[in-house]
Formats: sequence, structure tokens, C-alpha cells
Amino acid sequence: MYPFSRAFIHPASSPIRDLFKYLSDPEMISFAGGYPDPRLFDVEGLEEASRRAYKDSLSCLQYGNTEGIARLKTEIIRLMEQRGVKTSSENIVVTTGSQQAFDLLLRVLVNPGDVVLVESPTYSSNIQAARVHGARVVPVQTDADGLDVAALERLLDGIRSEADRPKLLYTVPTFGNPTGATLSLQRRLRLLELAVKHRLVIVEDDPYGDLRFSGERIPSLKALTGELPGSDDWVVHMGSLSKIVAPGLRVGWSISPAPIAYRCYIAKQSADVGSSPWTQGIAAEYLSSGALEPHIERIRRGYGEKCRALCAALRELMGDALTFHEPNGGMFVWARLNGEVPAAELLKASIDRKVMFVPGAGFHVDDPVLSTLRLSFAAPSVANIHAGVGRLADAWEAIHARI
Amino acid sequence: MYPFSRAFIHPASSPIRDLFKYLSDPEMISFAGGYPDPRLFDVEGLEEASRRAYKDSLSCLQYGNTEGIARLKTEIIRLMEQRGVKTSSENIVVTTGSQQAFDLLLRVLVNPGDVVLVESPTYSSNIQAARVHGARVVPVQTDADGLDVAALERLLDGIRSEADRPKLLYTVPTFGNPTGATLSLQRRLRLLELAVKHRLVIVEDDPYGDLRFSGERIPSLKALTGELPGSDDWVVHMGSLSKIVAPGLRVGWSISPAPIAYRCYIAKQSADVGSSPWTQGIAAEYLSSGALEPHIERIRRGYGEKCRALCAALRELMGDALTFHEPNGGMFVWARLNGEVPAAELLKASIDRKVMFVPGAGFHVDDPVLSTLRLSFAAPSVANIHAGVGRLADAWEAIHARI
Repeated sequence: MYPFSRAFIHPASSPIRDLFKYLSDPEMISFAGGYPDPRLFDVEGLEEASRRAYKDSLSCLQYGNTEGIARLKTEIIRLMEQRGVKTSSENIVVTTGSQQAFDLLLRVLVNPGDVVLVESPTYSSNIQAARVHGARVVPVQTDADGLDVAALERLLDGIRSEADRPKLLYTVPTFGNPTGATLSLQRRLRLLELAVKHRLVIVEDDPYGDLRFSGERIPSLKALTGELPGSDDWVVHMGSLSKIVAPGLRVGWSISPAPIAYRCYIAKQSADVGSSPWTQGIAAEYLSSGALEPHIERIRRGYGEKCRALCAALRELMGDALTFHEPNGGMFVWARLNGEVPAAELLKASIDRKVMFVPGAGFHVDDPVLSTLRLSFAAPSVANIHAGVGRLADAWEAIHARI
Repeated sequence: MYPFSRAFIHPASSPIRDLFKYLSDPEMISFAGGYPDPRLFDVEGLEEASRRAYKDSLSCLQYGNTEGIARLKTEIIRLMEQRGVKTSSENIVVTTGSQQAFDLLLRVLVNPGDVVLVESPTYSSNIQAARVHGARVVPVQTDADGLDVAALERLLDGIRSEADRPKLLYTVPTFGNPTGATLSLQRRLRLLELAVKHRLVIVEDDPYGDLRFSGERIPSLKALTGELPGSDDWVVHMGSLSKIVAPGLRVGWSISPAPIAYRCYIAKQSADVGSSPWTQGIAAEYLSSGALEPHIERIRRGYGEKCRALCAALRELMGDALTFHEPNGGMFVWARLNGEVPAAELLKASIDRKVMFVPGAGFHVDDPVLSTLRLSFAAPSVANIHAGVGRLADAWEAIHARI
């Protein structure tokens, strides 16, 4: 009826967001969305930050700078410095979550038909985002150590025409979504070499990096650019407060080389004028209060405990049903059902039993591995994690009996 | 150096936003941006709303629905009903200001090369937005009664190929930006007929409609669709709290036929996941408190007084320099310098004298009328309006002496 654009003639909704309708059921135990645990929100600390921010009510209520309010940028610079990254105001664009940071990057870099590289599997909404911009989305394999950098190298070496040269690579190198895998230090350094050699923009999405509960911290790609001259020109780093403070602030950011950052700022002018200066003010007050560090310690312990609870329950109650790697941080366990059982089938039986997760198909660009699934341990309580896996095991039994 | 997308190889920044750097000068009197008067913010009412919203801290801090939180949608439905528009939840997408509502519409309707119609002159950021999406932006003339609907009809009748058929018409029919003009009732009805006849999506941007301080209220295009069967399928209405409550909330919305609204929701998933549920919660509390109606009465009086002050000062101090129509509402006076003097030249002399405005060139798609300018009376005090026009008159004298 309406003359929709190509990407929206038959739009595909997010496979994760589409499960939200079941969340209103209070009996439902959800391993689905990447929701932080509400019990781990710093409700009082944020109330206090909100009260302080509103002392400068004019800054909360009036239009702010399109690229982000100055006070928040100062705090982001400080936070990134603690993470081993030196940056400055002109490189930062504050966004409505890091989702928007990626969308703005696509806007300034991608023409319809351009190639965008992603990990396979990868965060489904960013496959969607790239497709909305008309990109040809090309997957690169991953394994337990994250992106298969040798496979990327073969792919880049094999490019014969300018038109096939990828505009960017999107990667979540630390506690990846959906796999939970972390790119090894060796691979990180090799990836930076490839970026310089092939003049490839690497988009590093790092919402989970602070949520490490075991193993040794590995510096971000951005932090490692100091090791390799010229590599800083090819890394765009995206950060977010959604997983470590609260998603409701909708505060994310990108750190880019100045010509890219400037264009993201211009793109944001017509995208939404600017993100709310009110929640930016609250975020700035929260970060400057010193509350973040102890808060991260607390949620790290909380998520570590839940991750161990989920993995133990999966081994105990579903040992025959699936295989998985236990992650060192983040929010997700990526698993594969034995016997090629489609995860969508298990999901159907699971929803009947009031438990849910996200089938892995939506995280693949093409050739989905139908037996994969993503389980988030972040939101449910330890008790519910155990109960939820029990329900999953029931669902597995039920469909297994049918097979 | 970087392989930017076509729209961002040589990006054009907003002519309005680029003047912001002068705002940090405390001596500057600005008639430039469309900033509301901070003295007219309901600082206490919004603080109270913020306190009430945070009682449900979980809703503020967690992810909200992509398409907007339910309580805010309920309030928007009520507000629109007071404005003569019946709508329902499935038609509404809450956005980060109405700027994002337009951007999402472009995303779901426009392929590169498609035609987008705009009024000439029109809001500069939406020319930019359409161009970012690769649209061919085609201007339609306006006069003191708003869009020249007869000119539009000739344009539509003259279309010979499907490729030239416009995807949408963007219009600010009530107290237009930049002209301040209001589309007559007769023209509104005729415009709806044309929309039905030519299956043309009309995007009605209505941020200023409540800010009427003289003349009789004219219903919005959306409110008038009841008069003409079928026209409701072709009107998308965009609303905003930026001008009537506070821009810092970043709360706008679109009301569309369901297939368009559904696609805007999908587009928003990958654009930013969702606008802040925290500021949405504050907006919902504010709207439900009953504070909006008396607040609008108050700002209407305030802006009316300022508009009269600006127009009187212009007549008194710059009567020889420019011509303009006094608007019945909104925030803007659109003027034309006599003797074809370029407004950019006056601006240069004005900034030296600590007063500024926006030259009209940026509001034109092509063939800019260089002698036009936009003056906003919203932000400065009545005393500063008088002083500012005095400085403008000085600047005029100075460049006139040179000519």
C-alpha cells in the first residue's frame, strides 16, 4: 500500500525484542534479553545523582550539545583513562546507547551495497542495523577465542575489487554477544595489524568489558593501539553505561578519529538533535561521585555468582542435552543442543513451561546453526536460574520423548 | 582518507547549530536558535514529576519498550484527544524529539534518489535529514498563508514517471519554521484531498501548535482527516514536548497509519533500542499531573508579549531596513532585508555588536533568498529584545554606511 524503502518492505523485527511480550507473565523465568539485574541497580546512588544534576535544572531542561554535554565528556575521558585509553573531547560523541553509536557510524561510512563485516555469530540488532543501511553483511567465523583473525586475513587478502572492500568490521572482542568469548591478546594485536595494512575501520563494541569475574583482564583494541603505530586511525571504540550503570539512562558513546567523530556529530544533528541532557547530567554526576568503581565490584561478584550457577545447573541438569564454554565475564552463555535439535523447538516447549531464551539463528547472518541458543544469566536470581534450568530440562525431556 | 558514505564526504553542518559557539558569550543577545525561554520552564513542576517518576525506579532504570513506555502513550493519547485527534497506542512511536520521528519516517519510506517535498523555506535540519537519506529534496512555494497548495497541485499533476513520484511532503502547517506562517483552513482541506488523490504521505510537524497568542485556532491536518474519508491513511502527525514543556526531556512522537508506525518501531530498534524510559516517565507524570494546561497558558502569554515586543521594536528601530509579517503564534519572525542586502553580511556586523539571528539561506533547498533572516523571540527577555533590535539597527547602519 505505502511506497516503503527497500529495507522496510518486509521488515524483520529483532528476535530478542519479539520475545518481550512473554515477560509480562510474572511466572516467566527469562534467560532471553540482555537485561541487567534490577536488584543490582544502584537505586539510591542514582537518585542522589539525579538530585544533584537537577541543581543545574537549566542544563537538564534546555537543549544540550548535539555531541554530548561537556561534563559527561569529561567523565568519559576519565573513565576511559582508567581503562587504558587516552582520548579527548573532539573524538567523543555521546549517543542514545551504543546502538545509536553504531547506527551513526553506518550512516557516515556505508552506502547501499557496501560490505560490512561482522563476527558469526554476532549481536542480532547490529545485523539488522547494517541491513537497514543497505549493507551487504558478510560474516567472519569465530571460535572459543573470539574472531578467527586468520579467516579474516584470508578474506581481506582475497578481495579483488574496490566495490568488495569492506567499509568496517563490527566486533565485540570482550565477552562477546552472543558467544561470551573473548579475543586473545595475540589475535587483538594481529587484528590491529590487519586494520592498518588493509585500511579497515574496526568498530569495537565494549559494553561488557568491566564485567570480568575470572581470568586476566585483556586491554581493549583501542587501548592496544599504542602498541602499533598508525592503528589508532582505524579503531572506533563504543562504550555504554547500559550494562554497568543502567540502560534507562540511554547513555553510550563512540570514540573515533576526528574526521569520523565530526561526521557522527553532523549525522546526529538530523538523527535526533541530541540525546537527553537530563540523563547525561545524571550520568555525569554518578560517574563523578566515585560510586562507579565499588558498584562495578558489586555487580561483577553478582554476575560471577550467577554465571557459575547457570553453568553448574546446565551441567547438572542438562549435561546430555547441550555443550557450552563457561565465559569469564559478560552476561551470556552460548550453547549448542546435541543431536542437531533446533533451539526454536526447545523454545516452544520452554515457553509452555515458563522459561525462555533466545534461539541462536537470529545471531547468524546466513546459514544459521539452528541448534544454537543464547542464555543470559544476568537478570534472574540464582534461585530462579536453578529453577529455570530445571524447566528447560523438562522441556528438553518433552521434545526428546517426541523424537 | 576514510571511505565515507556519499552524504558524508563533504558534510554540511546545521547553520543554526553552528552559531551555538557564540552563545557562550554572556553579552550575546540571541534571536538565533529555537530555544524556549528558560524563565518559562516549569522547574518545580518537573522536579515534582521527576520525584514521582522515580518512585517506580525500576521503570526509569531498566530498558523500556522501543516504541515508548505505556504510561506516556496513554498521556499522549489524552493530549491528542484534547487537540481533536483520536488515536491509539499502535499508531504511536515515542521518539527522541520529533527530529527522530522524521528521521525514522525517512528511513522507512525513502530510498536514495527518491523525491521528498518540503516547503520553501523550511526547517533546515529536515532538509539535511532528507539529504542524509539520499533524497532529492524538491521545494514547494509558500506565502503568508503557508504552503502554496495550488503550486503543489500543479507539481503533482505534472509528474510523468513513477520515479519522480514524491515519497512524502514535509510541512509545518501551524506557525511554520522559519516563516511563522499558518496554513489556512481552506488550504488544509485541499491539501488532504490532494494527499488522497495522489496517494501522497503528508508529514505534519506540529511542535508549535499550542503556542497561539492571537487569532483563531485552526485544527491540525490530522484532526481534519475526519472531514475527508480516506485522508487519515495519508497523514503522519509529529508532536513534541520540546517547545511546550522542555527540550531536555527529548520527548517527541509520531502518529501514523499502523503499517508505517510498525515500521518506525522496527527502525527504532536498530537506531537506538529506545528513548530514555526515565525522561519518558517524567514526561508521563508531568502530563498526568494536570500541570500542562495552565503552563501552556502561561508560556502563550509570555511568547505573545515577546512577539509583540520584537515586532514593535523592528518597526520602530528598523522600519526602513526590513519587511515582515507578524505571526499569530510560535517562536519565529521571518523577515527580508530591503535593498537585497545579504543577511549574512548583516549577521557579521551583528555578531560584532553582540546580537545574532539565523540568515535565511539555510532554510532554502536551492536558490536561497539571501536577504531573508529568521528571528526567534522565544529566548531573550523583553528588555533584551529591545536592546537586541537596537544593536541590529546599529549593525544595519554600519553596513549601510559602507554600501
